[in-house]
Amino acid sequence: MTGALTAAMAGDPTDPELVRRARAWLSRTFEPGDGEVVRWVERTGPVAAVRALVAGTAPAGARRRAAPRAGADQSLADLDAAARVGARLVVPEDDEWPRVALHSLEVAMHVQGGPGDRTTALVPPLALWVRGGPRLDELTDRSVAVVGSRASTAYGDHVAAELAAGLAERGWTTVSGAATGIDAAAHRGALSAGAPTVAVLACGVDRAYPQTHRTLLARILDEGLVVSEWAPGCAPLGHRFLVRNRLIAALSRGTVVVEAAARSGSLATAKRARDLGRPVMAVPGPVTAATSVGVHQLLRSDQEVRLVTCAAEVVETVGRLGEDLADPPVGESTVRDDLSDVARRVLDACPVRVGVPPERLASIAGCAELDVLRVLPVLELHDLVERVAGGWRVTPPTRTRSHRDGP
Amino acid sequence: MTGALTAAMAGDPTDPELVRRARAWLSRTFEPGDGEVVRWVERTGPVAAVRALVAGTAPAGARRRAAPRAGADQSLADLDAAARVGARLVVPEDDEWPRVALHSLEVAMHVQGGPGDRTTALVPPLALWVRGGPRLDELTDRSVAVVGSRASTAYGDHVAAELAAGLAERGWTTVSGAATGIDAAAHRGALSAGAPTVAVLACGVDRAYPQTHRTLLARILDEGLVVSEWAPGCAPLGHRFLVRNRLIAALSRGTVVVEAAARSGSLATAKRARDLGRPVMAVPGPVTAATSVGVHQLLRSDQEVRLVTCAAEVVETVGRLGEDLADPPVGESTVRDDLSDVARRVLDACPVRVGVPPERLASIAGCAELDVLRVLPVLELHDLVERVAGGWRVTPPTRTRSHRDGP
Repeated sequence: MTGALTAAMAGDPTDPELVRRARAWLSRTFEPGDGEVVRWVERTGPVAAVRALVAGTAPAGARRRAAPRAGADQSLADLDAAARVGARLVVPEDDEWPRVALHSLEVAMHVQGGPGDRTTALVPPLALWVRGGPRLDELTDRSVAVVGSRASTAYGDHVAAELAAGLAERGWTTVSGAATGIDAAAHRGALSAGAPTVAVLACGVDRAYPQTHRTLLARILDEGLVVSEWAPGCAPLGHRFLVRNRLIAALSRGTVVVEAAARSGSLATAKRARDLGRPVMAVPGPVTAATSVGVHQLLRSDQEVRLVTCAAEVVETVGRLGEDLADPPVGESTVRDDLSDVARRVLDACPVRVGVPPERLASIAGCAELDVLRVLPVLELHDLVERVAGGWRVTPPTRTRSHRDGP
Repeated sequence: MTGALTAAMAGDPTDPELVRRARAWLSRTFEPGDGEVVRWVERTGPVAAVRALVAGTAPAGARRRAAPRAGADQSLADLDAAARVGARLVVPEDDEWPRVALHSLEVAMHVQGGPGDRTTALVPPLALWVRGGPRLDELTDRSVAVVGSRASTAYGDHVAAELAAGLAERGWTTVSGAATGIDAAAHRGALSAGAPTVAVLACGVDRAYPQTHRTLLARILDEGLVVSEWAPGCAPLGHRFLVRNRLIAALSRGTVVVEAAARSGSLATAKRARDLGRPVMAVPGPVTAATSVGVHQLLRSDQEVRLVTCAAEVVETVGRLGEDLADPPVGESTVRDDLSDVARRVLDACPVRVGVPPERLASIAGCAELDVLRVLPVLELHDLVERVAGGWRVTPPTRTRSHRDGP
């Protein structure tokens, strides 16, 4: 088997099909959310990473983690299984990759440093299995996560559906987890408004989980997307929901929690969104309802968490973030002009020679570290800053020019 | 009639009975909330003020405002009418005067300056008609205002009653306005816990308004207090409720809003509490309920407004303010040691010679002007600062000594 894989990995390591097959193999071999593995793969390149694992020359950590599954190669079978259900593997090398949204995870991964608990770690996916027609990057560009309790009340279901429908009317996509309760109500609300919606699963995109949502998932696929980090056939193991939550947070501009009991899993998604510097919103409810206790705790715990009562207020909140994102670059001076105040301050804080870490940038720019983490991806995408040893610095002017003229 | 009043006002202007009768007359003659009148009376003294009005030597503004009622003298009749229903007139010269609570209004009055709309002006009362057994200062020392919509729902009534009962169990008095809806539910909740409660009316304390609350008001009087700025017999005119609201805010350490439609009057009370630097809290409800729209607007409008769901959270919020209040002075150094951080910074910001206004103190002390307004009364009560022309300064050391030794 490893011999066949070695043969399959021969050739130009930038060949798109080789890259896709390598990432398919990595996607099944490693559980998502492992910062050490992802950092190594991004540094090495996916094809070279697979070759190193097969040859036994990969770092010990990666080899140890790959060991249980490295002997097998299901990459072609997985790609075939995906194709059979109308799914594809979207990889970072693709145009469709939701680069802007996921860049915050990349930044966070490099800031967080050492290995962490995968259920809370902020680590970008190695690849995404995507089922459905629309492009992933386009559908998640103006999107809001609406999450909440599985054991929702009629009140919560009503509010979630109204929110999603209101967001749809305003041109915003609702992202959720396809679970029972609030998630399902949110997806249904979007569908009722004739809008596409995105379900991020904790199992293979060929599976219907929960099974009672087989019809709902089919309706979502009519115009929307079902997304997962796990290869086709993978089961929705308990911890995978927690690992998955960071993707719901990252693939949307903000997260709204509708009904959550104390210690609800949706509060974990809200926490990931906060960690990524994305706005977190919460819909209050009766203080007498156990299903609103977690929401009220969330609102009390953090002044940055915004109380929202309708879709207009949600759009007002995430729209504000949108203003922080500059328009696509036209010329270098224009890019700078279009930057938000915070982005400009962070850019001005970046030194020209040695890199400095985000906490130092925050101190120089006089803003929160989360703001720095939020704007660095934008600055990097515009070639204004670059990551070097020790942190970020201004991209040298000559490099910027050649980078822009070249491939 | 003016001749009889002139005769009655003869004698030592510090004679307590003369002072009380003068303030009774002023209480009926002037509508409360008039900063120009109150400032003049406090500067002149109540007896001298009445004499000046009768003699026609009072300032034009005071004479003009007194004109419609100055010809009559109901002061004795009012004091008698009060006595007949078990009420008394509490005046600033009394020990019972809620000095600490109302000092914030004095400070605010001097900061606000010119004449303003009486319904929003922050002006201390000239005197308070108090019906019931307990001392007003003691009952309002640890108190919280619980206010809200007249057209409340069963949910709101339940929450208000639970809050007041929970506050009572923790030794806190509930202050409210005896209106239908949330006010009544709050008073009833306190009574159900066997605790005294304070009703602040917009009419004479001998009147039952609304009439349907005759029994409720009687029950409040069993162990609590009914308070009003208006003389016995005065009618609950519309604007008086708004003027009254500042007293509900001032006589409590914090204000909780339970249910409020958009533009609800209880939001005005919350606004007065904010203006006085007192914590404002709000109980959320279903976003689908019109009775919670105002509450959610309040929570969204101001990050300082705290979402609360139970009495423990209310006490946590107002208790925090309590920590800012120093213990009663033992010796001068001890007083200083017991001051909160903010109070110490404001004290250090006060100059020794010329007075400076609060906004300047805030700038020197590096804190919010509201914080300055909150701690100045404490500092003044401890003889650490004094108000002079232009603002506040440190009390000269000799004055402090003699002040403390002598009367």
